[in-house]
Amino acid sequence: MKEDIDRLMGSEGLDAILILGPARHNPDMYYFTGGGHVSSGALLLRRGQPGLLHCYPMERDEAALSGLQVKFFAPIADLLEQTDGDLLEAEAMQVQQLLEGAGVTSGRLAIGGISDLGPILGIIPVLSKALPDLTISGLPRDSVIREAMATKDGDEIERIRRMGSITTEVVDNIADFLSGHHAREGVLVNGGGRVLTIGDVKHRINRELVERGAENPHGSIFAAGRDAGVPHSAGADASPVPAGETIVFDIFPCEEGGGYFYDFTRTWCLGNAPDEALSLYQDVIEVYQEVVSKLEPDALCEPYQDLTCELFEARGHPTVRTDSYTNDGYTHSLGHGLGLYVHELPHFGQLATEKDVLAPGAVFTIEPGLYYPERGMGVRLENTYHVGKDGVIGPLAEYPLDLVLPLSQ
Amino acid sequence: MKEDIDRLMGSEGLDAILILGPARHNPDMYYFTGGGHVSSGALLLRRGQPGLLHCYPMERDEAALSGLQVKFFAPIADLLEQTDGDLLEAEAMQVQQLLEGAGVTSGRLAIGGISDLGPILGIIPVLSKALPDLTISGLPRDSVIREAMATKDGDEIERIRRMGSITTEVVDNIADFLSGHHAREGVLVNGGGRVLTIGDVKHRINRELVERGAENPHGSIFAAGRDAGVPHSAGADASPVPAGETIVFDIFPCEEGGGYFYDFTRTWCLGNAPDEALSLYQDVIEVYQEVVSKLEPDALCEPYQDLTCELFEARGHPTVRTDSYTNDGYTHSLGHGLGLYVHELPHFGQLATEKDVLAPGAVFTIEPGLYYPERGMGVRLENTYHVGKDGVIGPLAEYPLDLVLPLSQ
Repeated sequence: MKEDIDRLMGSEGLDAILILGPARHNPDMYYFTGGGHVSSGALLLRRGQPGLLHCYPMERDEAALSGLQVKFFAPIADLLEQTDGDLLEAEAMQVQQLLEGAGVTSGRLAIGGISDLGPILGIIPVLSKALPDLTISGLPRDSVIREAMATKDGDEIERIRRMGSITTEVVDNIADFLSGHHAREGVLVNGGGRVLTIGDVKHRINRELVERGAENPHGSIFAAGRDAGVPHSAGADASPVPAGETIVFDIFPCEEGGGYFYDFTRTWCLGNAPDEALSLYQDVIEVYQEVVSKLEPDALCEPYQDLTCELFEARGHPTVRTDSYTNDGYTHSLGHGLGLYVHELPHFGQLATEKDVLAPGAVFTIEPGLYYPERGMGVRLENTYHVGKDGVIGPLAEYPLDLVLPLSQ
Repeated sequence: MKEDIDRLMGSEGLDAILILGPARHNPDMYYFTGGGHVSSGALLLRRGQPGLLHCYPMERDEAALSGLQVKFFAPIADLLEQTDGDLLEAEAMQVQQLLEGAGVTSGRLAIGGISDLGPILGIIPVLSKALPDLTISGLPRDSVIREAMATKDGDEIERIRRMGSITTEVVDNIADFLSGHHAREGVLVNGGGRVLTIGDVKHRINRELVERGAENPHGSIFAAGRDAGVPHSAGADASPVPAGETIVFDIFPCEEGGGYFYDFTRTWCLGNAPDEALSLYQDVIEVYQEVVSKLEPDALCEPYQDLTCELFEARGHPTVRTDSYTNDGYTHSLGHGLGLYVHELPHFGQLATEKDVLAPGAVFTIEPGLYYPERGMGVRLENTYHVGKDGVIGPLAEYPLDLVLPLSQ
């Protein structure tokens, strides 16, 4: 949780963290600022001291919404005069001045944030030379801020739960919308005989989300047949929605303005399911239910990935454990932490360490799947879970796991 | 334009560029790949050779939509085995292998893209050590890709023009919606007496955009009174929409999936405009029209900023030219290039150089404004312009510049 930051910085030996970039869609910054229309910001966290948010004056009110102390960047025109027009030197000087202004001139500083890499990579050597007593490094993946984020407080849980309720409402409306169609020559048509495309469905998903004050920055997956057999294929907009084929519907919207995410997947066969799809689905739902029944607070995450592989292998499927290059069978990890990032700590798969546990406050997905692109099918089921303070583990939103959605006759 | 890349790389002495991050909302990558659901990608551009797009196998079909040759990252699990579980070393090795696989082991490589800074900053030193003949630097701001982007081809112009037509349609619907209200005690209420808030208007903007297949990743500005006097204040969602105060409505949506932007601002007074607002508006529209009438193909951009300052100063307003710290008067630059970034080349303000010209193919905004937060008002007018191949300069969408919107009686 946020209050762990100082302790975590201490254990990493960091004196300060500088987070660069905009305030939205930049989770490390949003975590401390709560968003706001700051397009170019620099948040300085000094261990044991309140955060300082730097911006240009025209964004001062938006920066002030963070509740943090707001400081201004020096105007770049003034700095360019001092550097004879050298932009790189001027930008480095801008960062140097903000560090000096905050007393961060020695010790260890880590730089992070989602931002334009190129210019930052350029200024680091200039900055290191100008502040020789300061050791500047990158903020390693999964360290400090990510570790703090891995356990959520009550307010964060409620925000994610609210996104869960919006998500399942949208999914339910999409299910109703699809069921209002009928099948003709293997594809969905409406009462007027118009063919429904995957693009139409995605457009409707976006509208339904926006109406509820949610945002869909990464788009959704609505992938049918062969595309359902490739985990991150998003689906072909121009293609008709087929009846009787597996459709993987994976939806991961966030709060408007770039806040907390939800993540949810169902696999549907519209009208009817072929035996082969039904059998694949049966394997996935059994594994899903078995894994979920074994979730325990404070347990390590990695063994659940092993268990999932074991259960799928026992059902005759290849897994990433038997072949890390496989595109058939179970090809990814069981789940991931979820919050301001769609993917955050804890890890269940290749990156899992002994730090990845189902700690109270953790929010994570469970999403086993099976993929056979050459057989034109894939099945994935996903819910987002939460470990309560009391150790009780449950999904943050409920929705039926059914494979077959009926169609109009 | 895109075909200038090799020449621009040559003039910067670059042998290769590596663009990291997702394919969406990452303009440098989108420019070459056209989007697609690639959440973790690495695009390698080698001078004089076709681009190589690297991804994980589960995103192979999405990567293939780019039309580029697709290569896979080595599984991180395999790399972690080779580095005894050291993630930083494993990630550096992953990049090293893709560079070696593409024959990029010597010469000059620049790294760019909008991505998570922390881990990349960490791997650069490891990578530099592993590939000692390769000089690795950041991709400087405004260089190479930005320079190529600064002139658009016909297809890009049409996509931006289409966003302009969506934007003005939405603006017109919002104007109608507001005009359908009447004023009571200084704020807008609907027929049923319900007070309209700024949050309601923003929600409606988002819905109108999504219905037309557009996205609003940075939100909109709908800022009234004092907030209108601070250029990037986005407006207070909970506040009622006031009558008779300046409202700056700045809207900058992009194509769904993170494509081309449009940028547009009007200032409205609902019902009536106080004399002071009218006089401010008069100054802005006069300056706007005078500057626009002087736009000429191949002209340098910077003199237009000087002209704007001069015209505002002649009308008695402070400007950034007289005081780079001013928050009153004309406090920003005249405009900016627009494309896959909301702000790109050419520059008109502090960052303008002799490279910033109104070249054929350029798309840019003209947006003079005056701000007096303490007097509770601000005015900005903005259109997006284009320099045709034939040198003709005009806006990419037309919309009235009127200040006063009538209300219902």
